[in-house]
Amino acid sequence: MLTREVNDLLTQTGADRPMGQMFRRYWQPALLASELPDDDCPPVRVKLLGERLIAFRDSKGRYGLMDEFCAHRGVSLWFGRNEQDGLRCPYHGWKYDYTGQCIEVPSEPAESGFCDKIKLKGYPLVKVGDVLWTYMGDKEHRPPLPAWEFCNVPAEQTFTSKRWQESNWLQAMEGGIDSSHVSFLHSGSLQTDPLFRGAAGNKYNQADRKPVFEVVDAPGGLFIGARRNAEDGQYYWRITPWVMPSFTMVPPRGDHPVHGHFWVPIDDENCWAWSFDYHPTRALSDHERQSMIDGYGVHNQYVPGTFRPRQNKDNDYLMDRDAQRRGETYSGVWGIALQDASLQESMGPIVDRTKENLVSTDNGIIMARHRLKKAVQAMMKTGATPPGIVPEHQQVRSVAAVLPADKPFAEACRDDLRVRPGVKQTSV
Amino acid sequence: MLTREVNDLLTQTGADRPMGQMFRRYWQPALLASELPDDDCPPVRVKLLGERLIAFRDSKGRYGLMDEFCAHRGVSLWFGRNEQDGLRCPYHGWKYDYTGQCIEVPSEPAESGFCDKIKLKGYPLVKVGDVLWTYMGDKEHRPPLPAWEFCNVPAEQTFTSKRWQESNWLQAMEGGIDSSHVSFLHSGSLQTDPLFRGAAGNKYNQADRKPVFEVVDAPGGLFIGARRNAEDGQYYWRITPWVMPSFTMVPPRGDHPVHGHFWVPIDDENCWAWSFDYHPTRALSDHERQSMIDGYGVHNQYVPGTFRPRQNKDNDYLMDRDAQRRGETYSGVWGIALQDASLQESMGPIVDRTKENLVSTDNGIIMARHRLKKAVQAMMKTGATPPGIVPEHQQVRSVAAVLPADKPFAEACRDDLRVRPGVKQTSV
Amino acid sequence: MLTREVNDLLTQTGADRPMGQMFRRYWQPALLASELPDDDCPPVRVKLLGERLIAFRDSKGRYGLMDEFCAHRGVSLWFGRNEQDGLRCPYHGWKYDYTGQCIEVPSEPAESGFCDKIKLKGYPLVKVGDVLWTYMGDKEHRPPLPAWEFCNVPAEQTFTSKRWQESNWLQAMEGGIDSSHVSFLHSGSLQTDPLFRGAAGNKYNQADRKPVFEVVDAPGGLFIGARRNAEDGQYYWRITPWVMPSFTMVPPRGDHPVHGHFWVPIDDENCWAWSFDYHPTRALSDHERQSMIDGYGVHNQYVPGTFRPRQNKDNDYLMDRDAQRRGETYSGVWGIALQDASLQESMGPIVDRTKENLVSTDNGIIMARHRLKKAVQAMMKTGATPPGIVPEHQQVRSVAAVLPADKPFAEACRDDLRVRPGVKQTSV
Repeated sequence: MLTREVNDLLTQTGADRPMGQMFRRYWQPALLASELPDDDCPPVRVKLLGERLIAFRDSKGRYGLMDEFCAHRGVSLWFGRNEQDGLRCPYHGWKYDYTGQCIEVPSEPAESGFCDKIKLKGYPLVKVGDVLWTYMGDKEHRPPLPAWEFCNVPAEQTFTSKRWQESNWLQAMEGGIDSSHVSFLHSGSLQTDPLFRGAAGNKYNQADRKPVFEVVDAPGGLFIGARRNAEDGQYYWRITPWVMPSFTMVPPRGDHPVHGHFWVPIDDENCWAWSFDYHPTRALSDHERQSMIDGYGVHNQYVPGTFRPRQNKDNDYLMDRDAQRRGETYSGVWGIALQDASLQESMGPIVDRTKENLVSTDNGIIMARHRLKKAVQAMMKTGATPPGIVPEHQQVRSVAAVLPADKPFAEACRDDLRVRPGVKQTSV
Repeated sequence: MLTREVNDLLTQTGADRPMGQMFRRYWQPALLASELPDDDCPPVRVKLLGERLIAFRDSKGRYGLMDEFCAHRGVSLWFGRNEQDGLRCPYHGWKYDYTGQCIEVPSEPAESGFCDKIKLKGYPLVKVGDVLWTYMGDKEHRPPLPAWEFCNVPAEQTFTSKRWQESNWLQAMEGGIDSSHVSFLHSGSLQTDPLFRGAAGNKYNQADRKPVFEVVDAPGGLFIGARRNAEDGQYYWRITPWVMPSFTMVPPRGDHPVHGHFWVPIDDENCWAWSFDYHPTRALSDHERQSMIDGYGVHNQYVPGTFRPRQNKDNDYLMDRDAQRRGETYSGVWGIALQDASLQESMGPIVDRTKENLVSTDNGIIMARHRLKKAVQAMMKTGATPPGIVPEHQQVRSVAAVLPADKPFAEACRDDLRVRPGVKQTSV
Repeated sequence: MLTREVNDLLTQTGADRPMGQMFRRYWQPALLASELPDDDCPPVRVKLLGERLIAFRDSKGRYGLMDEFCAHRGVSLWFGRNEQDGLRCPYHGWKYDYTGQCIEVPSEPAESGFCDKIKLKGYPLVKVGDVLWTYMGDKEHRPPLPAWEFCNVPAEQTFTSKRWQESNWLQAMEGGIDSSHVSFLHSGSLQTDPLFRGAAGNKYNQADRKPVFEVVDAPGGLFIGARRNAEDGQYYWRITPWVMPSFTMVPPRGDHPVHGHFWVPIDDENCWAWSFDYHPTRALSDHERQSMIDGYGVHNQYVPGTFRPRQNKDNDYLMDRDAQRRGETYSGVWGIALQDASLQESMGPIVDRTKENLVSTDNGIIMARHRLKKAVQAMMKTGATPPGIVPEHQQVRSVAAVLPADKPFAEACRDDLRVRPGVKQTSV
């Protein structure tokens, strides 16, 4: 349970809100690189943290992300012409370079210097892996580029998708660090999804539906351990790293690719659910990659031409009551991604956390909220740099392991929870 | 004409508003019994008086109506699994019985007593006739079950439907007690509708379009008499009972089944128009029942899979100007139900009654508003029980009769206006 | 750039706002005459300046425009029966004549005089040309009928259409007096549109994309001259008259019909873009008229049964990136009308003029805003009659001419800028 004030603090991400300022200290995934496939290709509208922006790729392959609207009289640059190193407004031909700097106002003499004074709010847009990342904060605080393993392995080892979710970012993220719902909501999919089924560890998930949670602080956030009974008095541990503010990783299963998420505010009632899948040491198989494209695992199918899921609240997520009755899907919704999204959206755009009743399995969520609150308050009060910004904090892995009963997971898996180039994930 | 204050008083039905509290003193129709046809069938979302609720039927056939959202973290229980005497949230498996009591929290030891402390707001849901009724008020004030004749005759004698109306409940109800519009709006349908045409009394409706209204107090509300000229100096009386707050009955026609309505707030800008048709002493014929299913009389056709009328404001109610010109339908809209609904919705979600110009034929409406206001103010001030709650008040019938000019209708029809088991309705 | 206060002043047109009161001093185009084609034809809903109105044509061919809602209980008269010299509400048969005067209340005795006291707010509706005009102000200020040339030439010489635009009226009107965007936004269409291509003057538009603007006061508003270089040190002038508050004319091209617009508030977030095309001295050719019907020139295609453009913001105006790349359409949107509308709508419903950066080519816009502000403030303070109301102010023409460098355009074209019956437009 949160007070109204703390719920507002954590869920409001506009530029003038504390959490909005904290989000603006991190590199955020902004677009799939495939959305800007070629030099001089059409510009793309992007909304992030409540700001309406336009992204484009210029004739030299440089990426730009800037205010969507022309500085002259407010026309959307989505109608713009992407030509010769800049994006030109189609109304009166004002032209901007990839930084947002105006470089031509046809009606004004070049020597007047008028256009030098015109600059749109612009943010860096940088390709790392399959993703274009942006940093929307002050220049002085700009951190090093994203160091996440999924976007720094070779291209053949990784796959990323994004999906529009019609809820606040926080309730989406809380689903990402909530291992306990897997035994219920995803119990059907564990047995059928090509990217989940077949792992030896799955049997523990199914057999022990009362995991015990242990959560320990990590430099960038938390390690959330969910302990289930295994053979011979041992424990089956699933360890989820959370790095502030919104990076989460699902513990691995067998030799399947490892998946995880970013939950990025579009505005306070919508977010981008970014989903990646990668293998640290081998290429994804054709079958794996095709399954991801087809919407299995943490990915999904789309309304054609959009990033909205084909199953969405307007069609009741294509609820299948017969499959629910037969237990093939626990909630009646097909697919892991939409199983989560449907329930999180059903809470309403911003869930009212003053009405919750939390239990021990919500410990990860409770501690994550606590650390978010502490970090945002410290940043506002003393200017302290929030966790998760430096590359070291991002060098984390999820783990699935069977451990002796007397071994604390964080100690036993210290090395496994760090990125180790050339060493595969620790998984059961 | 009402003041802004009285208009607000009568139209606002949230739990914190006086009229909302008064509505919560009555049994209200909540669902058709056919919406929960089997034990353990899928749960159904219901919105009533501004509250979002979930209805279900458990393994033992017990009906439950409770808060739509799980007490844990707010997921909609519409995604729930209806299994073994309870509805289970698909997120973490919390389970509720038909009263809203939590009976299982899988992550917590049963002996902790945690789940005993979790109870969703729950209301009784009881089948009487074809309808599931709920009572949303305090336990101490819970009245006896609904005693309306239409839901207490044998099943073969009755038929009930419901329809979503996009307006406040009051302007819908006011249409239900307004006999004077029949000579205009429904004049075409009187001659063509299989459930209206052919009654001897119809000719008076058509011939005399200036009915004189006499309205008398009844224990539960009003008897609204509309007097038209008949042969030999006699009067043709059509008498509409209104029982607080929102039960209305249309006067009968010949031996046709008798129909009536409940107007139940969904929220303040939407209501359920419940429509019933029954015969006190005989089974409905196959042709009558099929006509009701086909949307004739007070019933209507639907957008498939919904309770929204096929003719609705998004398609201008399938306005037929040619039929209007020919007089087959007076307003250009087909069907009695949608003739009323289209006009009531056209007033806007909550009609502004400060701008009205009422006339003598509006007397029934004027007196109904007055009694509603008096009852709600008395209840708020002194705790007085509002009329219409006790079964005796509900034992009313509508009447159509030709009476001598010197007979006051209420006296002449005293017995006819009461339910008399085994005696058919008084009709012309 | 405007202050927030001045932006509000100029964009808000409700009956209680200064600009709303100024708009109510002018005759406004309300409907196409073809919307009420016959005596006793179906009534038509119209929203103007935020008021919801109903228009009809009675049995004697008289036009009425009045409050949409019946004075009795607020039903929309769109469902009314248009019969025998009046529009009858279908609920209880109240009937209104073309002035809004109630002429029958069936339930009340005629001798009671009740209905004489009932009058809906009503406005005159007068056919001049192909347009039905209304005047929504006080009787005492009612001006002479519209004297615009386009609606006073013979029917075979003129064509008018209207289109729903999803923006405030002012940003639409500002597009109409902004000659400088033609060289960019419409550069493709100048070469392909059958109603634009082929004029000798077009070559100057294409060759000189840095027009110099000279704006001079006119009795009713402004003459906005855009000067481009022509041969031999001469200037090619395109002169746009603007008459307050929202009449604009495009300068002519060769012997093409001349076109222009009215921009009329529906409410503050929507406007009617009226578009006319006429030739002062000859009939439109079949090909010209068919091109207008087909949506060329300043006209457009529609969503069938509506005045909404087929290309609209819900379908991204059928953006054609390939045609944009090839330069066939500069912004990727086809058609001159939608090229303008798409950009103006992209600014948002009411553009925030506190964020603009205006340049010299915006001088016409700057001066028009200034005159609007001055006129509305004078009217509010001293009751001064705003410009553009008297017929003389409306007798204007647009001009395209090549002039010697030392001739001021207003002086050189004094006669050409006035309507001269039997004399064709001055055009290149």
